[in-house]
Amino acid sequence: MAEPEAKRVKTEYELIYWPGIPGRGEVVRLLFEEAGVGYIDTAKAAKAAPTTLSYMAATNLGDDKNPPVFAPPILKHGELVINQLPNILLYLAPKLGLAPASGDAVYHLNAIALTILDGLCVEVHETHHPIATDKYYEDQKEEAKLRAKAFREQRLPRYLTYVQRLLDGEKSGEGGWLYGGELTYVDLVLFQCLDGTQYAFPKTVEKLRKEGKHDGVFKLYDAIKERPNIKAYLESDRRIDYADGIWRHYPELEEDEE
Amino acid sequence: MAEPEAKRVKTEYELIYWPGIPGRGEVVRLLFEEAGVGYIDTAKAAKAAPTTLSYMAATNLGDDKNPPVFAPPILKHGELVINQLPNILLYLAPKLGLAPASGDAVYHLNAIALTILDGLCVEVHETHHPIATDKYYEDQKEEAKLRAKAFREQRLPRYLTYVQRLLDGEKSGEGGWLYGGELTYVDLVLFQCLDGTQYAFPKTVEKLRKEGKHDGVFKLYDAIKERPNIKAYLESDRRIDYADGIWRHYPELEEDEE
Repeated sequence: MAEPEAKRVKTEYELIYWPGIPGRGEVVRLLFEEAGVGYIDTAKAAKAAPTTLSYMAATNLGDDKNPPVFAPPILKHGELVINQLPNILLYLAPKLGLAPASGDAVYHLNAIALTILDGLCVEVHETHHPIATDKYYEDQKEEAKLRAKAFREQRLPRYLTYVQRLLDGEKSGEGGWLYGGELTYVDLVLFQCLDGTQYAFPKTVEKLRKEGKHDGVFKLYDAIKERPNIKAYLESDRRIDYADGIWRHYPELEEDEE
Repeated sequence: MAEPEAKRVKTEYELIYWPGIPGRGEVVRLLFEEAGVGYIDTAKAAKAAPTTLSYMAATNLGDDKNPPVFAPPILKHGELVINQLPNILLYLAPKLGLAPASGDAVYHLNAIALTILDGLCVEVHETHHPIATDKYYEDQKEEAKLRAKAFREQRLPRYLTYVQRLLDGEKSGEGGWLYGGELTYVDLVLFQCLDGTQYAFPKTVEKLRKEGKHDGVFKLYDAIKERPNIKAYLESDRRIDYADGIWRHYPELEEDEE
C-alpha cells in the first residue's frame, strides 16, 4: 500500500470521545497509533464530556457542510465531521495506509469490520445492559447473567469461528492477517474487540484459547500486540484502563448458576 | 445524480436472503425497486433456505475472490460476494443512482444509514430477543416486556428525534429528504425501518405521530410510500408480509403493566 496520505497532508485529525474509558474511540486510536500519525484526542483534554455532549445536543443541527451526528466517537478532519465507528474506520483506513482506497477490498473489509464490531463490541455491551441502556447494571443484573451466558456459550464462539473461517479462507492470504496477505485496519478492530472481550470475560476467553479451535485468531491477537507502534502505545499512559464502558468486568457474569 | 449505472451494465444483481420474512433483505429490495433495476431474489426461488445456509456453512471459506460471509443479506454482483446490510447499501446506492459515488456524502450517508439501522432494526430485534437469539421468544417474554418498554419510551423517541434533527439541519436541503435536497438510499432505509417498527409497535408509533414532534419524519415516510415505483412494489405480491423476523408484532410488548 502507498505511503499514508496523512503523513503528507497538514490537516490534523481530531477524535471526539468520552473521557475515562477506552470504548469505541479506542479502535480509532489504534489506527492512528499503528500508522504513527498524530491526532487530537478530546477525551484527554479539558472539558472532554461537555465537548462530546455539545455535538449530541438537540440544538446542534450541524451546518451547511455536515449533518448533525448521533453519538461519539466523532471524527473531525478539516471541514468534515462524521460519526459511527465503522464509518470513521472506512474513511480513515485508506488515508492511514491501512486499507486500499477503492475496489472490492473496500466492501470486503467494511463487512469484516461490521461483523467483528457487532459480535465483540455491540453484543458485549448487551451482556451488561440487556434491558435498558439508560438504567444501571445493578437494575438489570439478573437479566445480564442470562444474556452473558448466551454470549459466552453461543455468540462469542460463533463469532470467533467466523473470524477463524476468514483466516482459513484463501482470501486472507499468507502471513496470518485477516485479509489480502497484509495488515489492514480490520486486524486492529479484531485486536481491540478481543482485548476488551478478554477483559470482560477473562475465564471464558482463556478457555476458548486453550480449546485450540481458533488458534489463528489468538495468533493474530498476539501479533498485533507485538507490533512496535502498538506495543509502545499499550505501554504508554495514552492507553486508558478499562472501566465502566462497553467492555466491563463483572465476575458474576462468568459464573454458571444451577 | 447520473443515470443509474446498473441500467447500462449487463451483470445482474443477486440478493441472497431468507424466505418468508421481509427482514433486512427488504431494505436492499427497496433500492432495486425504487431504481427500477431488475434483480434475482433467492428468497423467492426454490431451496431458498438451503441456498442461504450454504453461504454460512463452516466449510464455506469463500474463494480467491471473496472472503466467507457471516450472515444474510448477501449480495452477489458479477464476481463480488458481500454481506452486512449497511455495506451492501454502501456498494449498491451509487450504482443505482441513490447516492454520490465519492466525496463527503459517502460518509455522511453511511453514518445516517448505520444509525437508523441501529435504532429501528437492530434494537427492534432486541425487544423480542433480549436474552438469547438462539432461544424462542416465549422463553424470554418477561425480559422482552422490559426491553420493549425501554425501547418504546426511551430509545425509539431518541432515534426519531435524531432523524428529525437531520431534517431540521441545513445539510438536508429542501424537499424534505434526509440529505442533500434529493432522495437518497437513506430515505429508503428510514421508510423500511419505520414501517417495520410501526408493524411491531403500532400504538406506540401512532402516538408518536400524533404528538407532532417528528412531523418531518412521518412526512418523509408518507412521501416514500407514494413514490410510483415503491407504491407499485408495495401493492405487488413481491412485497412479503411481516412475520417472525426482525419486525414482529406481539401485542403484549406494547402493554404497560403496573
